[in-house]
Amino acid sequence: MERLILHEDPVSGNCYKIRLTAAHLGYPLERRAYDIRKGETRTERFLAEVNANGRIPVLQIGARFLPESGAACWYLAEGSPLIPEDRFARADMLRWMFFEQYNHEPNVATLRFWLAYVGEDRLSDAQRAQIPVRRAAGEAALALMNDHLVGRRFLVGDALSLADITLYAYTHVAGEGGFDLGCYPAVQAWLWAVAAVPGHVPM
Amino acid sequence: MERLILHEDPVSGNCYKIRLTAAHLGYPLERRAYDIRKGETRTERFLAEVNANGRIPVLQIGARFLPESGAACWYLAEGSPLIPEDRFARADMLRWMFFEQYNHEPNVATLRFWLAYVGEDRLSDAQRAQIPVRRAAGEAALALMNDHLVGRRFLVGDALSLADITLYAYTHVAGEGGFDLGCYPAVQAWLWAVAAVPGHVPM
Repeated sequence: MERLILHEDPVSGNCYKIRLTAAHLGYPLERRAYDIRKGETRTERFLAEVNANGRIPVLQIGARFLPESGAACWYLAEGSPLIPEDRFARADMLRWMFFEQYNHEPNVATLRFWLAYVGEDRLSDAQRAQIPVRRAAGEAALALMNDHLVGRRFLVGDALSLADITLYAYTHVAGEGGFDLGCYPAVQAWLWAVAAVPGHVPM
Repeated sequence: MERLILHEDPVSGNCYKIRLTAAHLGYPLERRAYDIRKGETRTERFLAEVNANGRIPVLQIGARFLPESGAACWYLAEGSPLIPEDRFARADMLRWMFFEQYNHEPNVATLRFWLAYVGEDRLSDAQRAQIPVRRAAGEAALALMNDHLVGRRFLVGDALSLADITLYAYTHVAGEGGFDLGCYPAVQAWLWAVAAVPGHVPM
């Protein structure tokens, strides 16, 4: 494996996904920290050298740069047990990873960022008006996970996969966004199961 | 390959991605149509039998159901030239697919749906207030693609991949959402290149 550098904000769950994947695989990651609240990923240099999309995480692999947390996790985990061997299970794992980015992260992670890191009194009117919509959509995402996880240990098959790692990142801190995980007991049991897998590291 | 049934709304670009992937691969797809504007994907039967998330597309493979367009495209394309063999290129393809679902679809596709299919006068106040934010984010996504595509024929490497197919779906009809593709000449050239690949089918 070439030298791996993670361009990240340490409070970002999207960045944690990559650290957690690397930890399970035993890959060393160098870390470069940026504070997104100070606009450090929107500087000319960052946009030119790291990611034209102005976002972290970006996984640097030698001289190449790979944005998008799910893609970076996939890159690291190829050929490992974190990606199921069965064709349907592999696609089903990607299903949960796309669900995370489309239905879960924009709601659960955004409310956490707004409420715990920006502060409700500093939100714009447009952001404040979005809170109820994102609250309802975040609850729906957690409810969907909960229904699926009843009677299951992990999201796909019988073992930890990238589906669990990527959804764990923002689910385990959903309380910081005002979500009550006590309403989702199967999700809570799954959070414990994910954290109990050898190799786990905290955020 | 088991029997393949696509549960879809024919006007949805997310569904078209799967049809386009199957067409390039020569796989026959049976089609079951639902009208999302009439709530046909929120019925008890749909939620219980097809997708608890109440969304299309869902690719049915024999008796198993696979939601999320990107996951369904991946399932179909495994082992084909639509997924690059190189490890970095494969992850980079997924990078564009996650970008599509996070940065592109919620803006470019949502404005198309609101303006061309729901109608601006039927939008809620909350939806109407979101138009400027989604317009700016959609333009940013198209600009990012345009910058990347200058001097390139396809998004990843030298051949058509799922990155092109999934981003083609809503980009080629972005005009229906009020986006002027004339501002993005490299995107326009890429749209022509994608549509010129043998096996292409229209939406």
